[in-house]
Amino acid sequence: MENPMNCADEQQPCCPPLASLWSGQQDTVSSKKEKPTALGGFVLVHAGAGYHSESKAKEYKHVCKRACQRAVDRLKAGALAVEAVAAALVELEDSPFTNAGMGSNLNLSGEIECDASIMDGKSLHFGAVGSISGIKNPVLVANRLLSEAQKGKLSAGRIPPCFLVGRGAHDWAVTHGIPPCLSEKMATKFSLSAYKRNKRKMELAEKMETGPNQTKKRRQSNENENGSGCLDTVGAIVVDQEGNVAAAVSSGGLAMKHPGRVGQAAHYGCGCWAENACKVTPYATAVSTSGCGEHLIRTMLAREVSAAMQSEDAHTALLEAMQNKFISSPFLASEDRVLGGVIVLRCCRCVEAQPSQGIQAILVEFLWSHTTESMCVGYMSAQDSKAKTHISRLPPGAVPGQSLAIEGGVCRLTNTVE
Amino acid sequence: MENPMNCADEQQPCCPPLASLWSGQQDTVSSKKEKPTALGGFVLVHAGAGYHSESKAKEYKHVCKRACQRAVDRLKAGALAVEAVAAALVELEDSPFTNAGMGSNLNLSGEIECDASIMDGKSLHFGAVGSISGIKNPVLVANRLLSEAQKGKLSAGRIPPCFLVGRGAHDWAVTHGIPPCLSEKMATKFSLSAYKRNKRKMELAEKMETGPNQTKKRRQSNENENGSGCLDTVGAIVVDQEGNVAAAVSSGGLAMKHPGRVGQAAHYGCGCWAENACKVTPYATAVSTSGCGEHLIRTMLAREVSAAMQSEDAHTALLEAMQNKFISSPFLASEDRVLGGVIVLRCCRCVEAQPSQGIQAILVEFLWSHTTESMCVGYMSAQDSKAKTHISRLPPGAVPGQSLAIEGGVCRLTNTVE
Repeated sequence: MENPMNCADEQQPCCPPLASLWSGQQDTVSSKKEKPTALGGFVLVHAGAGYHSESKAKEYKHVCKRACQRAVDRLKAGALAVEAVAAALVELEDSPFTNAGMGSNLNLSGEIECDASIMDGKSLHFGAVGSISGIKNPVLVANRLLSEAQKGKLSAGRIPPCFLVGRGAHDWAVTHGIPPCLSEKMATKFSLSAYKRNKRKMELAEKMETGPNQTKKRRQSNENENGSGCLDTVGAIVVDQEGNVAAAVSSGGLAMKHPGRVGQAAHYGCGCWAENACKVTPYATAVSTSGCGEHLIRTMLAREVSAAMQSEDAHTALLEAMQNKFISSPFLASEDRVLGGVIVLRCCRCVEAQPSQGIQAILVEFLWSHTTESMCVGYMSAQDSKAKTHISRLPPGAVPGQSLAIEGGVCRLTNTVE
Repeated sequence: MENPMNCADEQQPCCPPLASLWSGQQDTVSSKKEKPTALGGFVLVHAGAGYHSESKAKEYKHVCKRACQRAVDRLKAGALAVEAVAAALVELEDSPFTNAGMGSNLNLSGEIECDASIMDGKSLHFGAVGSISGIKNPVLVANRLLSEAQKGKLSAGRIPPCFLVGRGAHDWAVTHGIPPCLSEKMATKFSLSAYKRNKRKMELAEKMETGPNQTKKRRQSNENENGSGCLDTVGAIVVDQEGNVAAAVSSGGLAMKHPGRVGQAAHYGCGCWAENACKVTPYATAVSTSGCGEHLIRTMLAREVSAAMQSEDAHTALLEAMQNKFISSPFLASEDRVLGGVIVLRCCRCVEAQPSQGIQAILVEFLWSHTTESMCVGYMSAQDSKAKTHISRLPPGAVPGQSLAIEGGVCRLTNTVE
């Protein structure tokens, strides 16, 4: 049993004091042997909570690696967290293997409609798009909404929107210089064949379900079919060298969803959350979620997890939040399986033992947890030469939607102050 | 100074104990002289937080009255809170004077796009539509989404949507038996002339703002123009005879909004909230909000107010929530004026002094608060012969968006148990 980060063991007492982080935690990965790095920031990404086949593990890890690198490149260039997190998302959206941007799930009508949102922990501004078609990188529209809103009111005192959907979102994006993309180009061989397969499955299920007692039969339909399959919404969370945090999320939504359906990725408090530290919240926190949108909306998981992370012990806080606010949430009492995952950052400034040395440090605790069969994550600090990636899986025998996996690590960013 | 409801003065001690509700409160209206009524439920509606001209006061009050009556009719027929609240909303949407359904604000393109949502405190289910066109009663679509989701999974194990937007929402509604309505029929003489006036104002403002330093000028544009004008989103909250609560909200959105813009009325936790009492929350609470959607989204006002109402004193709880979680919210730090209003119900069962008499009672505290110039409300218990209505206004000299008004009352529903 390891205890990779416990302030009591450190020469530098942290502010606020951190209790036994990771004590009792056996499965932590990486960053356990904490070594000070120059400031620059840290990124944690995920390629979705769902099911990641072994055969595609390499691709999932590879896209996470590239997304981390993109964010770190931006951080090294002096970008703020919100810019870096958007850069990571673009890479994740561009991968044909993820259910976001290119290669998104097709809806009932065989079309791609995407959701995405971004939140800046510094300004607490938020931008989101829902059910948007014909835009390769929905996160860029969400990010542009965020930045436009920061400029203040529109002409004649109109309040700028933070959430646009459908055709209106598409047209706004194009007007603001984001190029349109033919929807056909966003579908992949894989997403098209999945659509055909799902359509056949649905038609077969509906044939079996037709009859005088259709509603009852509908309720009894095979719960496993939607299982913890490819719910691979993507997301990223970043802390920059100033300690600002940001979070983003992007999704093609559930396969065979009804046109116009909007999931958690566009929903405030549900898909992502980021809040810098302030007087009343000692930790900066950033969260991005993945999984079944309706479950993540109704439990407002991103915000609940963020709020929970102000507790003393990060690991316990996340474990309890996932158990009490998600798996056992009264809002999902009628659901037999609650499917989702989160990635979490929490950061606080450390007061170094010898302040005369002029060293500033930010302690970054990073975690992920999921109730789905697997979740693919990647993480990297600005001083790492390359990202680390990991496919987290539920322990053998655990039931998806009823059990959870939780892992993470600690990283300390330090810098010499002039 | 009156104290219309203080359990200490009552012969029937309440469970949980209620402290000096409304003490220090001078402006309460109605229901002060509490008289036991047979069970049947209670409804509180609003025709929007914004500005209600004296010249139209009669119409606003009249529609609130009719909405209350509709809900009470349903309650008397044995309907649950969620059905009654939907019935009230239909009446509010059908009025050409409110900014919801018929007579909604027109967007930039001269079209009507509506948002609506509904939440059932019993099942904690939620349904919402955003940016929907061509449907006379958007709340009926939200309500149908809620009830369909309660039936369980769709064919092939697909999870039913809780939030649909745009064309997809319209088509889903029609497929589910909700008749389409020509958009032209939903515009009124008033909404069309307001559109023309706003368009001229906008064009004029944009002409004045064009120049080398456009962005800066945009920020300086007249803050008053969007003022606390006609932001009259409508809503209702209900408690039924079993103590179940429900909340709903419906809106045509801001005048001259960008097509596809979705406001708080479709946003989980922002437009409405309802939670029955349970082990950890002694009070059932229901909230519906109105005002500037972006402000109400970013502060998640409905849910914040609901959570605050578990405190001992309802009046203080709402006052503090409006002050700390809305006007002074860190999420709106960059806004000089924060515009919105809420209606709130909280209910608890009273334990009667002489249980042998077999009397059951529910204590209903109802409140409203707004930072806009005015807010029009109506309320009625199932035993009242007609609804009471009121246009609440900020005190003289108070600045909209920086000050608030808060009022309310108490009603006790009693019933003899077999």
